[in-house]
Amino acid sequence: MRLATIDNGTPDGALIVVSSDAERCLQAGGTLQQAMEGWPQVEPALRSLAGRLNDGEGEELDHGRLLAPLPRAWQWLDGSAFPQHGELMQQAFNLPPIETDRPLMYQGLSDRFLAPRADAPLPSEADGIDFEGEYGVITDAVPMGVTPEQAMAHIHLVVLINDWSLRTIAPVEMKTGFGWVQAKPACAAAPFAVTPEQLGEAWSGGRVHLPLHVTLNGQWFGSPNGREMAFGFHDLVAHAARTRDLVAGTIIGSGTVSNADYGTVGSACLSERRAIEMIESGAPQTPFMRFGDHIRIEAEGGIFGAIDQTVVGA
Amino acid sequence: MRLATIDNGTPDGALIVVSSDAERCLQAGGTLQQAMEGWPQVEPALRSLAGRLNDGEGEELDHGRLLAPLPRAWQWLDGSAFPQHGELMQQAFNLPPIETDRPLMYQGLSDRFLAPRADAPLPSEADGIDFEGEYGVITDAVPMGVTPEQAMAHIHLVVLINDWSLRTIAPVEMKTGFGWVQAKPACAAAPFAVTPEQLGEAWSGGRVHLPLHVTLNGQWFGSPNGREMAFGFHDLVAHAARTRDLVAGTIIGSGTVSNADYGTVGSACLSERRAIEMIESGAPQTPFMRFGDHIRIEAEGGIFGAIDQTVVGA
Repeated sequence: MRLATIDNGTPDGALIVVSSDAERCLQAGGTLQQAMEGWPQVEPALRSLAGRLNDGEGEELDHGRLLAPLPRAWQWLDGSAFPQHGELMQQAFNLPPIETDRPLMYQGLSDRFLAPRADAPLPSEADGIDFEGEYGVITDAVPMGVTPEQAMAHIHLVVLINDWSLRTIAPVEMKTGFGWVQAKPACAAAPFAVTPEQLGEAWSGGRVHLPLHVTLNGQWFGSPNGREMAFGFHDLVAHAARTRDLVAGTIIGSGTVSNADYGTVGSACLSERRAIEMIESGAPQTPFMRFGDHIRIEAEGGIFGAIDQTVVGA
Repeated sequence: MRLATIDNGTPDGALIVVSSDAERCLQAGGTLQQAMEGWPQVEPALRSLAGRLNDGEGEELDHGRLLAPLPRAWQWLDGSAFPQHGELMQQAFNLPPIETDRPLMYQGLSDRFLAPRADAPLPSEADGIDFEGEYGVITDAVPMGVTPEQAMAHIHLVVLINDWSLRTIAPVEMKTGFGWVQAKPACAAAPFAVTPEQLGEAWSGGRVHLPLHVTLNGQWFGSPNGREMAFGFHDLVAHAARTRDLVAGTIIGSGTVSNADYGTVGSACLSERRAIEMIESGAPQTPFMRFGDHIRIEAEGGIFGAIDQTVVGA
């Protein structure tokens, strides 16, 4: 089953169920946030709508009106679960390794997620504008102290996210130990939130086993696969819930997708490619984004739909 | 003018205006979040209700039903603006100074703020349970790139916060550079959100010039004054808005209140007192909180009402 949110002029939009060819939809009534708050009750009704779509019902889907699945969320916790990314950054910048056997995670801006085709308004090209292609999951309410096994049952939707990042500011904030505020403006999300079973074999071990195709200004940039997470999403959910109840509609991110064979599959952010260039030739060659630059991020097969954004001056 | 939120069974509660003796109130209709979203339109109506309270109108205020002013918020950004606190922590733990001339700030859990008299449910005494008494402000929508001077006009309410902290986890998370997730469970807030002009001379330079009286298990613990912030709240708001629009109802915190004459006025968190003990005698004497321990935090004069909480096992 695939869910999406269509712009109806309200902050949370209107929840729709989307047909398998993404050409038709049925209004579900209410919002995705409300669905996450009452998932056991709401899910059967949504699956019934999905069945009607399979039977050919539904109205034409207007892709231009699609918002992020959750246009705003009460909580966004972003991990950094791909070890290859961390290793490359440490090697390039001569940083000490982050000494932890725990998942890395920060609390991010959650009051807005940009629509899949919305411009990304940012204040300055000098900030080192970068994208980050990553997968994420949406949970219902999760009680404090769940095990990873218990956490798996709270993962109801999988999403695709572009975590906009400002690389000139990031190390300055990171050095304080306080995490990122200015370096992490609003993320965007691809339009379709997908139930895990809909991913079939691509959902395994709490990971999304699909390449993420990244295209920068019309040129192939990378296709790393989501399967190489050191921790599964269920581990990340349990980590987040160690000392807090998670509110329904919490979004948990994987961090930028990164693979051991980066030389072949490329990267899902500029910063990592620049790190590889620094390691290989002593200096980065690829510039950060300029106003007018364009990024497209889509999982293989297109099940989440595409993120398709242009950077503009705020 | 003083505003508060009363429990009516909904997640956001009901907005009320409170009389100057805190014994009567009038229902405002709607929620504080809605008021922040439409402040220029809503404020005159609220002030009219405050006038009627001054004339003796209103119903009896049931203090037991008071929630946090914003029982949930779309954004909570907490600073660490008292330099004395940072210096003591660095000295005690032999840490390198945080090299920055920028405000320190992290993004915190905002999906719930505990009621002023609610128990604080935490999973383990071994986590180093601590309170942090601090001031905060609530803004309306703030556009990206505001100056500190412009930011001042977006500060509409001042609040008092208990930023629950888990000190065994905090340094582990801080060392990663990602900021805190597990170390910062839900905060609590005192019941009354106060307009800056109501604070009179105690609101000056974007700072709250009032001692914060902290009482632990019935014993005086500290009375540090809010005036010693290195940055005013308007500076913190501008810092937060450097690369993002701030959503209406954003709460910005000062960090734990701390003064240069800590030997006389004491501290607003256990961690700082323990740091002073380590510096003075080589080892901390004051233990972290145990289940059943009780903390009371109130500004001099009581204008924000009191935070009055017991720690309980989750």
